[in-house]
Amino acid sequence: MQALEQKILSEGIVLSDQVLKVDAFLNHQIDPVLMQQVGKEFAERFKDQGITKIITIEASGIAPAIMAGLELGVPVIFARKYQSLTLKDDLYRSKVFSFTKQTESTIAISKKHINQNDKALVIDDFLANGHAALALIDLIQQAQAEVIGVGIVIEKSFQSGRDLLIEKGYRVESLARVKSLANGQVEFVAEAE
Amino acid sequence: MQALEQKILSEGIVLSDQVLKVDAFLNHQIDPVLMQQVGKEFAERFKDQGITKIITIEASGIAPAIMAGLELGVPVIFARKYQSLTLKDDLYRSKVFSFTKQTESTIAISKKHINQNDKALVIDDFLANGHAALALIDLIQQAQAEVIGVGIVIEKSFQSGRDLLIEKGYRVESLARVKSLANGQVEFVAEAE
Repeated sequence: MQALEQKILSEGIVLSDQVLKVDAFLNHQIDPVLMQQVGKEFAERFKDQGITKIITIEASGIAPAIMAGLELGVPVIFARKYQSLTLKDDLYRSKVFSFTKQTESTIAISKKHINQNDKALVIDDFLANGHAALALIDLIQQAQAEVIGVGIVIEKSFQSGRDLLIEKGYRVESLARVKSLANGQVEFVAEAE
Repeated sequence: MQALEQKILSEGIVLSDQVLKVDAFLNHQIDPVLMQQVGKEFAERFKDQGITKIITIEASGIAPAIMAGLELGVPVIFARKYQSLTLKDDLYRSKVFSFTKQTESTIAISKKHINQNDKALVIDDFLANGHAALALIDLIQQAQAEVIGVGIVIEKSFQSGRDLLIEKGYRVESLARVKSLANGQVEFVAEAE
């Protein structure tokens, strides 16, 4: 997605050959117009799939997911990382290890909002090793709902997440695919690759 | 805002005379169409104020804030509750006590994304005692930016937050104002009150 790649090039910051910081438009400050374009692009790629729910994870997944939900006309559920006093329903739980924070956390969604009739699309801001996406898929499968695919805003294609998800049979649509962050430069996977 | 009040009546759950649970459309599952209406309503109320930034707090503030940002054509910053390894810039920090979780936490925004030329609108999902809103206002004022007002999706009018903010001179626009949750019933403040 060209507008997204342009934004990454102009406002993304390469912190190391592993870490791309996009706090200017996705992970801290958010560009609502770009998010709307992102939502439209996800909707275009996953239309006609009968999607009934979008599942994401707080906090940075919410903006792209809500815009995709608006375009597809379906509700969005964001998995919670911490149980709040008001999220005490019966929950589906899964564990996810964050390399960024070096902690394992439990994520959860309420059993009330997803069931075996749902066709769910997973959306997240980043795909790196795939742990977050797999935890979201696990939650969906606990509900016996169908996983239609995984929509990612920025994929770090040099990490193992994409291959892992495809190997397990999931469709992955990433709007920007970063091939390398070497030498402080963002290089994208060419469209045909 | 009538569509919001109807949604609260049909899908909100009164957990006690203090706690209204809206996990069906705002705090866990999100209704994107309602959020778009919420965003349009905030934009209508705060248009012509020269707003340049919307400031909210993760996670439940993001959906209404991003829709307001889309309508007003301005970026949204969500204050982070926990420092991540990639949010290491110079930060403005403020403390906020959560009655829901009974914990004090530090929230922060990067100094890079807000400055003295900004006119900021605070948006949050709930207004209860006002602590979260005041912490967001504190962050804005540390940046020497101007606070244009506070936009709230659901105000618990029987708690002290609204009066506290108005006493301090801030404009508060709440789209639904809950007068009472007594006897398991949601009662709204009448429009004229």
